Amino acid sequence: VLDAKQIKRFAAEFDPQPFHLDDAAAAASLFDGLAASGWHTAALTMRMLVESVPLADGLVGAELQLAWPKPTRPGMTLQVFGEVVEIKPSRSKPDMAIVTMRNETRDQDGDVLQVFTVKMPVFKRMRAHN
Amino acid sequence: VLDAKQIKRFAAEFDPQPFHLDDAAAAASLFDGLAASGWHTAALTMRMLVESVPLADGLVGAELQLAWPKPTRPGMTLQVFGEVVEIKPSRSKPDMAIVTMRNETRDQDGDVLQVFTVKMPVFKRMRAHN
Repeated sequence: VLDAKQIKRFAAEFDPQPFHLDDAAAAASLFDGLAASGWHTAALTMRMLVESVPLADGLVGAELQLAWPKPTRPGMTLQVFGEVVEIKPSRSKPDMAIVTMRNETRDQDGDVLQVFTVKMPVFKRMRAHN
Repeated sequence: VLDAKQIKRFAAEFDPQPFHLDDAAAAASLFDGLAASGWHTAALTMRMLVESVPLADGLVGAELQLAWPKPTRPGMTLQVFGEVVEIKPSRSKPDMAIVTMRNETRDQDGDVLQVFTVKMPVFKRMRAHN
């Protein structure tokens, strides 16, 4: 469960805006209450993806799109739901493909906090020849 | 200046993949040496934007695109160069516009590490009426 202390600690280091740092300022802002930095939501999502997506060479994003339809709040439990949208063999590199993955980060009620689409280079397994 | 310790500390919390955590594993990876998590580059960029872009209501991203053309390495000094690409008045909300900003995060030699395009809702100043 994400708590206010974690939200404020991340914001103090990377996104020090009042609505991510201070409860009263956040209540008066367009967020209408303390909200995590979107980069915090993205980083927490990455953590979950690293722990769950089995790509042997790792998860490396070449380019991506990101949207935050709803604020991430203290007390929320985040989950990620991902799907592979496309696997496109590289024209120039025969051992490589570009995998497009679409991920939704949702809260405990299923509300979507972040939509994240990423293109990742993926390499074919090496094979022994004889 | 970004150092290896900061890179590994961020990665341990949010992106625990060998090429962000361990020098030897990083040297053997496609990064060919320790590289910061792209999310770390993005978070450091946000810090610089918050400190330099004068939007009264804060920097709030509605949707964005992100690419990392080159890895961020220990020893680099990051800088951000931003430009406003478009200011589009909202059709539904007369006091609002959508500002599109394109930002490049570059190292000390001017090489581009991150390209980040973001659409931000911006509100007109309130005025007193009489």
